[in-house]
Amino acid sequence: MYHNAIYAQSGGVSAVINASACGVIETYRHNKSSINKLYAASNGILGVLQEELIDTDCETESDIRALYSTPSGAFGSCRFKLSSLKHNIREYQRILEVFAAYQIGYFFYNGGNDSADTCLKISQIAHEMGYPIKAIHIPKTIDNDLAVTDNCPGFGSVAKYVATSVMEAGLDLWAMHSNSTKVFILEVMGRNTGWIAAATGLAATDPSLPPHIILFPERLFNPQLFLIQVKNVVNNYGYCVITVAEGLKDQTYNYLNQNAQSINNRDGFGHQKLGGVAPYLAELIKNQLGFKYHYAIADYLQRSARHLASKVDLEQAYGVGVAAVKLALAGKNAVMPYIKRIATCPYRWEIKDIALTEVANIEKTMPDEFISVNGFHITEQCREYIQPLIMGEDYPSFIQGLPFYVRLKNIKLAKKLPVFDINISPLSDHCSKNDTTTT
Amino acid sequence: MYHNAIYAQSGGVSAVINASACGVIETYRHNKSSINKLYAASNGILGVLQEELIDTDCETESDIRALYSTPSGAFGSCRFKLSSLKHNIREYQRILEVFAAYQIGYFFYNGGNDSADTCLKISQIAHEMGYPIKAIHIPKTIDNDLAVTDNCPGFGSVAKYVATSVMEAGLDLWAMHSNSTKVFILEVMGRNTGWIAAATGLAATDPSLPPHIILFPERLFNPQLFLIQVKNVVNNYGYCVITVAEGLKDQTYNYLNQNAQSINNRDGFGHQKLGGVAPYLAELIKNQLGFKYHYAIADYLQRSARHLASKVDLEQAYGVGVAAVKLALAGKNAVMPYIKRIATCPYRWEIKDIALTEVANIEKTMPDEFISVNGFHITEQCREYIQPLIMGEDYPSFIQGLPFYVRLKNIKLAKKLPVFDINISPLSDHCSKNDTTTT
Repeated sequence: MYHNAIYAQSGGVSAVINASACGVIETYRHNKSSINKLYAASNGILGVLQEELIDTDCETESDIRALYSTPSGAFGSCRFKLSSLKHNIREYQRILEVFAAYQIGYFFYNGGNDSADTCLKISQIAHEMGYPIKAIHIPKTIDNDLAVTDNCPGFGSVAKYVATSVMEAGLDLWAMHSNSTKVFILEVMGRNTGWIAAATGLAATDPSLPPHIILFPERLFNPQLFLIQVKNVVNNYGYCVITVAEGLKDQTYNYLNQNAQSINNRDGFGHQKLGGVAPYLAELIKNQLGFKYHYAIADYLQRSARHLASKVDLEQAYGVGVAAVKLALAGKNAVMPYIKRIATCPYRWEIKDIALTEVANIEKTMPDEFISVNGFHITEQCREYIQPLIMGEDYPSFIQGLPFYVRLKNIKLAKKLPVFDINISPLSDHCSKNDTTTT
Repeated sequence: MYHNAIYAQSGGVSAVINASACGVIETYRHNKSSINKLYAASNGILGVLQEELIDTDCETESDIRALYSTPSGAFGSCRFKLSSLKHNIREYQRILEVFAAYQIGYFFYNGGNDSADTCLKISQIAHEMGYPIKAIHIPKTIDNDLAVTDNCPGFGSVAKYVATSVMEAGLDLWAMHSNSTKVFILEVMGRNTGWIAAATGLAATDPSLPPHIILFPERLFNPQLFLIQVKNVVNNYGYCVITVAEGLKDQTYNYLNQNAQSINNRDGFGHQKLGGVAPYLAELIKNQLGFKYHYAIADYLQRSARHLASKVDLEQAYGVGVAAVKLALAGKNAVMPYIKRIATCPYRWEIKDIALTEVANIEKTMPDEFISVNGFHITEQCREYIQPLIMGEDYPSFIQGLPFYVRLKNIKLAKKLPVFDINISPLSDHCSKNDTTTT
């Protein structure tokens, strides 16, 4: 039995993934009799393959605590999905070689669907090869598209940020609309799922309030119905605020984004790189209805906005980090701690665990009953589901007017093994799979 | 002598213009022996021309106090500049007719350069026609481009927001850069002046920290030098964060924004509507250097982000509102209260007043010594100037996970005068002037 551990972060980062790291590391430090050393892999699974390991014991207690208040991934992340076993057995062998060289008995992988899949594959190949590993996946994705768990750490904070931003920008547009701009569009993340776009709907506590229209990837875009809706909203309220998910598709299932069609425009998981549907819609509205517009593209701002994180989200992110270590110490393998909702009002939740076979590569889109019949807003049921996830504030401390965010020392261990060649180009075969997730 | 007053908001709104309104209204309520009634004009000077007046006495004390924590313009704003006297004497006559009908002795106009000009013209024509008015301009512009005043209420908060956002998005990019995105671009407001772009530089307390490159409208864009700079930054630090002002121009003084060239693309002051320089730069970098990119366009989000306002900015915005009423009661006319810096470290300031003839239609661009020699960053002198303006936090209260922002009752007075026809189309002659400002 090996007594060391590796923790790694994968996929698009969030405002609270470091809170999970904080939970993992603090719990490890309380259990040094069981786990001898906790290493962090630099840039996710790539850090394991390349033997780029960080000694977390070099970080001070206060710096580890500060992770709770620091967005992004403190050890670096990656967009890299392991090939299937038959395509690249060398990678799996390498991972186990590195594990063996550092006596790794516990592997904690913090990410979305792709990393759940990686974590599962590692546990499977280790089992086949007789290597004793406890591989635990720690859920993280702003897209909220993981199966089984009630919600995903990271989502609550981006939800709070985009709902607040729409509320604020909506007030701005209201003040300007009488003789200037009539339409404002906020483009948010969400390739195949409309969870983030849906969250903006929380700001519309009344039909007269922004956002007036939400466009979901779960509904194919119908320009005629959309323009009628925009016109009606402007007629009724004088102005119109629209939220659109970047992954909105037309009736032929093509992304509406104007510039996303080239083959080079793909991320490391092989997904089309999105962004740009807001100007497309804005031009459509100007040309067909004549309304002046403004639009914003939130991009990284939405998922790194730790200054406006949800307290509930932080507690859950920390909680799944703590739970991951406890599950590993309890002998569990190939599982994921997840959030189970006990009650919605008042909101109560607990952390349970589930086999990764039930989670990996399954994408949870929005249920039909969460989208209004006309397809342009959320239902009360959806509001009730998302509302508890944005509750509470937990501000970072500020120094000189700006948030204090920690940068760890990230001191790397000297390498023991030969160099391992790996193609990490975004267009390598690792990335050309027909992946299903965005984080 | 007339004892009633009108307050109105003009131009692009901000996170703190309502704090000025709060200062005006609370000070009026403490001086009811001198000012009998304070009306708010709906949508700036348009509300005066159209006799759309709001009775501020219908608002509760707590709602007026809540203006301090509410972004945008609570009475509505406008992009409307009065024609010159010789072009449209009717408008000036109408304003004085409305003033007379409501016994207006005090006029408070809260805005940027254009509204300073409007305020000045009204005071001049009133003087010529023997109408007794005290016209006070209350400074407001996120662009920070008003003359005389050390800084403009609204700027400190947008500065704090964009610097924080760049810091957060920069951490995000850092985590992703090893095998994915290498460049992030944030497009901020600023047509002719780079103050907002400059403010992001506060986050770069070290040359290795984002933003690595800032592009100012005060420097014509040189693609060759820019690409060399991007390449060097990526070589040195592995990733590159860029801030660009929307008003960046090429060597022939044309805006770099791809879609801003059509005549229809103008706002109510006749300015070209901007936005879109970030994707232009991103494509340039991808095509020439091959780096993957992300970009964000902050647009309204940056100027409405009351959730992250600067405490100093709020105090100054409230302060100039209070000062405006006091100046009027002291018999001043055609002046603007402004912020005078007494000391930078520790920061101390006071409010003085200046004649509007010294302010109207003068645009304060960034001094040469605030931009680094290579043109791609701010100097220490610039940092020292902006730093105090973002100090302190003053969070709104939150209800159900979202900020509480007040919406006033805005009860309008019954009209007394005949309807006044006015062309308020964004392309009317009011808007085709060669204006110099953006707010």
